[in-house]
Parts: sequence; structure tokens; C-alpha cells
Amino acid sequence: MAPTDPTDGWSLAELARRTGAALDGDGAVVVRRVGTLEKAQAGAIAFLANSHYASQLATTRASAVIVSPEHAALTPLPRLVTPKPYLTYARVATLLHPSQGAEPGIHPAAFVDATATVGAGASIGPHATVGAGATLGAEVVVGPGCAIGAGASIGARSRLAANVVVCDACVIGEDALVQAGAVIGADGFGLAEDGDRWLRVPQVGRVVVGDRVEIGANTTIDRGAIDDTVIGNDVKLDNQIQIGHNCVIGDGTAIAGCTGIAGSTRIGRHCRIGGAAMISGHLTIPDGTTLGGAAVVMSSIDAPGVYSSAFPVVPFADWRRNMVRVRHLDQIAERVARVERALRDLSSDD
Amino acid sequence: MAPTDPTDGWSLAELARRTGAALDGDGAVVVRRVGTLEKAQAGAIAFLANSHYASQLATTRASAVIVSPEHAALTPLPRLVTPKPYLTYARVATLLHPSQGAEPGIHPAAFVDATATVGAGASIGPHATVGAGATLGAEVVVGPGCAIGAGASIGARSRLAANVVVCDACVIGEDALVQAGAVIGADGFGLAEDGDRWLRVPQVGRVVVGDRVEIGANTTIDRGAIDDTVIGNDVKLDNQIQIGHNCVIGDGTAIAGCTGIAGSTRIGRHCRIGGAAMISGHLTIPDGTTLGGAAVVMSSIDAPGVYSSAFPVVPFADWRRNMVRVRHLDQIAERVARVERALRDLSSDD
Amino acid sequence: MAPTDPTDGWSLAELARRTGAALDGDGAVVVRRVGTLEKAQAGAIAFLANSHYASQLATTRASAVIVSPEHAALTPLPRLVTPKPYLTYARVATLLHPSQGAEPGIHPAAFVDATATVGAGASIGPHATVGAGATLGAEVVVGPGCAIGAGASIGARSRLAANVVVCDACVIGEDALVQAGAVIGADGFGLAEDGDRWLRVPQVGRVVVGDRVEIGANTTIDRGAIDDTVIGNDVKLDNQIQIGHNCVIGDGTAIAGCTGIAGSTRIGRHCRIGGAAMISGHLTIPDGTTLGGAAVVMSSIDAPGVYSSAFPVVPFADWRRNMVRVRHLDQIAERVARVERALRDLSSDD
Repeated sequence: MAPTDPTDGWSLAELARRTGAALDGDGAVVVRRVGTLEKAQAGAIAFLANSHYASQLATTRASAVIVSPEHAALTPLPRLVTPKPYLTYARVATLLHPSQGAEPGIHPAAFVDATATVGAGASIGPHATVGAGATLGAEVVVGPGCAIGAGASIGARSRLAANVVVCDACVIGEDALVQAGAVIGADGFGLAEDGDRWLRVPQVGRVVVGDRVEIGANTTIDRGAIDDTVIGNDVKLDNQIQIGHNCVIGDGTAIAGCTGIAGSTRIGRHCRIGGAAMISGHLTIPDGTTLGGAAVVMSSIDAPGVYSSAFPVVPFADWRRNMVRVRHLDQIAERVARVERALRDLSSDD
Repeated sequence: MAPTDPTDGWSLAELARRTGAALDGDGAVVVRRVGTLEKAQAGAIAFLANSHYASQLATTRASAVIVSPEHAALTPLPRLVTPKPYLTYARVATLLHPSQGAEPGIHPAAFVDATATVGAGASIGPHATVGAGATLGAEVVVGPGCAIGAGASIGARSRLAANVVVCDACVIGEDALVQAGAVIGADGFGLAEDGDRWLRVPQVGRVVVGDRVEIGANTTIDRGAIDDTVIGNDVKLDNQIQIGHNCVIGDGTAIAGCTGIAGSTRIGRHCRIGGAAMISGHLTIPDGTTLGGAAVVMSSIDAPGVYSSAFPVVPFADWRRNMVRVRHLDQIAERVARVERALRDLSSDD
Repeated sequence: MAPTDPTDGWSLAELARRTGAALDGDGAVVVRRVGTLEKAQAGAIAFLANSHYASQLATTRASAVIVSPEHAALTPLPRLVTPKPYLTYARVATLLHPSQGAEPGIHPAAFVDATATVGAGASIGPHATVGAGATLGAEVVVGPGCAIGAGASIGARSRLAANVVVCDACVIGEDALVQAGAVIGADGFGLAEDGDRWLRVPQVGRVVVGDRVEIGANTTIDRGAIDDTVIGNDVKLDNQIQIGHNCVIGDGTAIAGCTGIAGSTRIGRHCRIGGAAMISGHLTIPDGTTLGGAAVVMSSIDAPGVYSSAFPVVPFADWRRNMVRVRHLDQIAERVARVERALRDLSSDD
């Protein structure tokens, strides 16, 4: 889903009009692409969202910049002034680099079952498979090598990059963006002990994904065991995330890469889950919770807030010593208690 | 591998007979699908395996339930009574929702090398590739977009979902279930230092997978460097697991998602490995070991048992303080030792 | 990318000549394959790189061995003697088990856009897709089911296993080896807050990969947000690694499996990153840094060295006690400080 080559460009005045930012300076300047303050060339527009980089305003070769009111005076360049430069940047970038249109139609090397429904303007790439009874909405893009299972449904304007798998009966809403290699609706890890062996438990639920959802590369979302796994509207999932069967992820929640969520856990709305978080099964995490990177969650969280648990690196020698100490922390704590008692005894002796 | 639509259903008496559970109540009741106690509708059978949900027995709209003897009196519904309700549920669900049959035959959009052997009743989906000299047993299902390498072998009745890769010469036993995107037999991480560069070490072993194995979505199992990587019978692997070259996983071991196992580690039989565990290379873990979620294993384990190491989240402010303390834990321990000595000195002064 | 069947073999004298090792014993002995000391059969050559296994020299059935000078006297077998037995082994294995040649040409079941450029001797497998304007160098191997995006470029002799995705405009250098399921150039996790929703930020950069790079199975590397994500020459990435947008990985760095690196982090040259490491975004890690397994890095590292942070497993009961103590470590530290003060007061009382 790489953006297109630069367009003919837009005048700064037009960009101001379309993004709602204030124009400061020559509105006739035309920009054709985005750039970073550091590396932009003439014809590019850059942005400053972090004061840390403010000194780059003086040296940038960009033709225009997007800045907040507090930084507007630091540059002589034509500029868009807005309290949210990053959001305005996102809007400008979307105008300058619109998503690459996919050629409508079913590629001759695709296989679409005769009973599938394909909406107007949909694009189905080479070597894609669309199963029996599947439904693709208008302008859906199915990339090369995707496999859409029987009875699955993809909402209008949703785009699947290459080699995405959507398993039987699963539902994806409108305006989704699914990156390459994601697997939606594989069987969950359902096993019943049967003496020395495991008996497989049929996974009869679906995955139901809301609207405007993004799913990262090689991320996996398991289908429900009985009821469905549910991904709310506006949920954003980074790469290599694993979501177990019957999880429910609330609207607007964003989850960074490499996070794993075990089965039947319910995550609230508008949560922010740091990368590589590991969340056990059957838990509840309330709306608006933030989890730091590499957070481990092993019981439900009662109140929204910011939670962390990771221990960052230290030099190896320190690590070895501290690691051993942690293993005997309980003994240290008991020694402290003994010392306190001894001191009390000494004091009472006085 | 989604289950089929509900069948015509089974009478409770027949389900009792086939699963070995005791029948309590009207055996003529017909159920057509499984459901949860909470959401089941008429025509569904639900189960209670956890006392925590016993109150739902009073309100469920299911037509029948599966319960243990201790809960049997809590419901007036027709029921299957069994000491292992979840196992009986698994059997009932398998009867009500049998695996979807795949149409036998080679799809016209598949490519099967002329020298490959395809067993009777096998099904090969669109855009699948079966390499030279590969062998597929009877009733094997190869999903859309799978790639089976040259000389690979898949045992009878094994099913591969979409976009699974089985690399050259690798062996999968009978009755396997491999979820979408899994990669079996990629080259392991074999590198020899050659001055400033790395020299690649050819990976000449295979992956040999036993019978009745499940492999989760986007899980990867590397081929052996010289000898084979071996996955025993009845091993169950969840999604996004990484198993390094020359690992040996014993029969019946179950490993939850996002776990990584570095090369040449031997894991015993009937182990249970929690999600997101990280196990270093060249270790031995004995039969019957249980590892908690997010466990980190950096040396061999001598005796079976339950092992854990993860630190769960705390509120951010507490985390910051404790994180700093852990970095100086060795100093704390030394201060405790000094205090103890000082106290001893004081006491001996007395 | 499995190696070929054993060749006709090589005489030990010839192997000595080609690898630069010293020959000790009968140089006419012919070996046809590599083996481990433990399991090698006649016709195989094994190696000893770790004194720990030296006793196996006495019992091996290999026809020849590769040893260091200090171990040469421990075996009567014909041998290659070298200060770096593992490196010599790698060279010998490469001679005995050369990479399987792929049949040159475009498979009839592949789709190659008419505007793509395919170098001499390139091999494109079944169900592969090569997009508009893509460029494949000489002798490039594109495995079954791969998808090469529009305008992407793959350097000479690079090999892609099955189902690899290289997204639009991304660049892979020469002599790369990319394992199955890897995704290079998916959109990064770029989101701008827009009230209650997230606005997607177009990802207009590329991934640019150097020469002689290896990329493991199901590893993902995101394209840059504005500038490119850059993977240096001779970088070696294991399986299931996630590299965020705009990361820069220096030449010769090796990263073990399951590691996640968040966006815009710069990792130096010749670093060694242990498995399952988790590295936050916008950090700098200097050349020559080593990170232990499961290391968590949340701030930049100033000086090269060895860094670790993982706490390995302990028996469950110990874990529970210590885990609780860590949560109150700050209080323990304060109690120690109080005790120290009390002791000082006692002393000054004296």
C-alpha cells in the first residue's frame, strides 16, 4: 500500500484551506511531497511537532513547514500554523501522497468462487483466492496471494495487502487496512485434556472486525471458540500482534507491535498498549488504560491509568548481581524485618 | 478450517451414548449447535466447567447443558452429567460442528509438480504449489496459497490452512492441523564469524513433525543445522511461536502463543509452556515441566515443577521507583548486611 | 532453500586446500556430507568447536573431523586442523551441500507485470507476483507465492523463499537470503490523534536493504514514514523480528529471533542482539553493543558493552514471594534507610 508518486502538488494556500491551518507567508508556494526538516529538498513541506528538533528550522531546505504557534516565529519559511502540527502534517501528507489506486477488476490469475459477491470497483490481485459465498464490498482491494475464506465478508473500501488470510465466515468492516501476512480467523488454541492426549475443541465463533481498523503485518487474530472475537471500530493494531480467541478490543484502542493477548481478555476503549506487552487470558482492562512497553499483565486492572512492569537493561555485571539478589529478595526482606525487630528491642532496652 | 454450519442436530440421548456422559432429563431434546451459557439460544447446548459461572445455569436459554455431578442439581434443563464437562463439551462440539470437508482433487489454479505423489481424496487449493517429489497422504488438505517444498511429506488426513509453507524435505505426520501462515523448515540462524563478516552455515537437517500435531498461525519451526528438528506426537503449538534449529519437543507438550525457543533446546514430554515464554538455546527442560506466562529460561531445569519469572504491572509511579531500586538491589543487599554486622557489633558490645 | 543432496564428495586433501585448514592424516579419504560427532555415519565429516563435547571424538563414526590444534591429538581420524573449526566447518558444509539451484525462468503459473525487468538466469516460482516496474537482478530466485510490489528492486543472486512479500518501491541488495513469510515494507504504525479517532499517516519512505543480508521467516520490516528504513550490509535477522519504521541497522549486526525494535531507533554496526529483546523507539545503540536474551531497552545506550535485564525463572512459590517483594521494593529500601539512620543515632548516642 505504498503511496503514489508525488502529485502535481498543492499550493500552500490550498493546503491551508483544506486542513484548516492558518497560512503565514507566501500561499502561492507549491509543495509536491513531504520531507523531514533534516532531509527535505526544495518542493517539500516538513513539520515540527517536537521542540527537541526546533533548531532544524534554521537549516532545513524545505519549501514550507508546518509549525505550532509557539514555533512560528523561528522560521522565515512560508508555513501552516496549527496547534496540532502532526495532525495537520497527516492531512497534508494524505493530500500529497494519496493511497495508490488499485486497478479495478479481477486479475486473470486470481480465483474467485462463482458464488462469491464482488462489489463495484473492487480489485482482486494475482493469485488471490475468494471462497464460496464470500462478499467483498465496493472498492475493496484484495492484494496478490490473499486468501478470503468461504462466507467471509470485507466491507467497502477495505484494503488487504499481499498474502493476507481472512478465514471462513470472518467479517471485516469498512475502510480497513490490513498489512501483508496478517491472519484473521485462524483456530484458537482450544484443547481439552483427554488422558495423556489433547482433544481438539472445535472453534465455531468468528472474528468480527469493525470499521476503520488497521491490522499490521503478520498479526494474527483467532476466531472465537463459541462466541466471536470482536475488534471494535477504529482499533489500530501494529505488526506481529497475537490476539487469542474471544478477546474483545474496544473502539479506538491502539496496540503496538509484538504484543500478545491470551484468550477471552476484554480490553476497553481508547486504550494504548505499549509494544511487546503480554496480557494473560480472561482479564478485563478498563477504558482509557495505558500499558508501557513490555508490560506483563497477569490480573485484571481495576482503574484506568498508566501501568508498567519492564526492567530495562543494565551492564552485564550489574545485571548478574541484581538478578541473583532478586531471587533472594524475600530473604532480604526478612532480614530487614529482623533488623527492625532487633533495633526495636535495643531501643526498648534503653 | 471453520466448522460447518450446524448439522441436523443430535438428540441428547444420542450425545450421551456417544460421549459416555450420563443423561439426566429428557433425552429426546435435539440440539443443533453449541453455545455459551450466557448467549446460547434455543437449540443450543452449553457447558459449565468453572464454578465461577454457576449462576448462569439459572438464566441460560440453552436447550441442554453439560455439567459435573456437583452442579447437576443447579439446573432443571436436560443435561449430560460427567466428571469432565469440558472434555465432554469438546466431544459434543466435534459431533455438532464437524470439520468442514474440503473438496477432493487438485484445483485447476494449483501447481503440482509431475513427480509429486498425491494420496486418494487429497484436496489441493487454488494457488498452492507442491514441489518435485513431494508426497501427500490420503485425504490431506492443502489450503490456498500453500507452498510444499521438494521432497516434503505430509501424512494422511493432515490439513494445512491457507498460505502455509513446508520447506524442502520436511516431514509432517498424520492428522496434523497447521494454521495459516505457519512456516515449517526455514533455514535456522546459522552463522560463523569470518573476520568482520558472517559466513552462512548451510542448514542441512529437516523438520520432522509427529502425528496429531497442531501448529498455530504464523508459527515458525526452523530446519536442523545438521541433524533434524523434531516435534513429537500430540504436540500443540499456538500462534507466533518460534522454534529454533535442532530443538526437540517431546510428545504431548503444549506451548502457548508468542513463545520463542532458541536452537538445540530439548523440551520434555507433557510440558506446558505459558505464552510469551522465552527459552535460551542448548537447554534441557524435563518431562512434565510447567512454565508460567512470559517466563524467561536461561539455564536448564533439573526437576519438573512449575516455574515463573514475570513481574506483572504496577502503576507507573510505583514502577519507576521500584525499577530504580532493582538496579541498585545489590547495594541494598550490602547495606542490609552492613546493618546486620553493625547490630551484631552492638550486641556483642553489650 | 534446502541444500542439495550430497554431492559426489570431496577428498579431505581438497577440502584442506580449499578451506585453508591443515591436513592431518589420510588426505585421500572422501567425505560426502556433514554430520554431528554423535550421529555421523561413514562418509561424513564432523567438527568439534566446543571442548564440552571432546569426549565424542573417541566414539564418533565420522570418516573425518575438523578440530582445533588443541584437540587434534584426541582423535586418530583423518582431520582438518584449524584455529576456527566452526568457520572451517561452515566452508566445508558449503562445499558439500551447495545451495539448491532453482530452475531459471518464469514459471507459467507466475505473474510478472509486462513493465518489470527480470535479470538473466532469474527464477520466478509458481504463483509469484512481480509488480509494475519492479527490477530483479541476475540469478535472483523468487519462491512460490512471493509478491514483489511495484517499483521494488531485488539485487543479483538474492533468493526469496516462499510467500515472501516485498512491498512497493522497496530495495533489497545483492546476495540476500529472505526466508518464507517475511514482509518487507509494510506500512509502519503511523497515527495522528484526531479527537476521538486516529488519522492514518501516509508512510512514504521505503525499506532499503544492503548486500548479503539475511531476513528470517515471518520477520517484518516497516517502510519509512518519510525517509527510509535502512538495513545495512551483512545484517543478519532471525525469524519473527519486528523492525519499525525509520529504524537504521548498522552493517554486520546480527539480531536473534522474536526481537522487536520500535520506530526510528538506530542500532550501530556489529551489534549482537539476543533473542526476544524489546527496544523502544527513537533510541541510539552504539556500534559493537551486545544485548542479552529478552533484554528490554528503554533509553539510549551511551557506551558499547554487554547489557542484560531479564530475570530467569525460579520455582513458582519463590516467584510469588519475590514478585510481591519487588512491588514493595521501594518500601524495603526506605526501611533499610530508616534502620541505617537508627543505627547511626544509636552509635552517636554512645
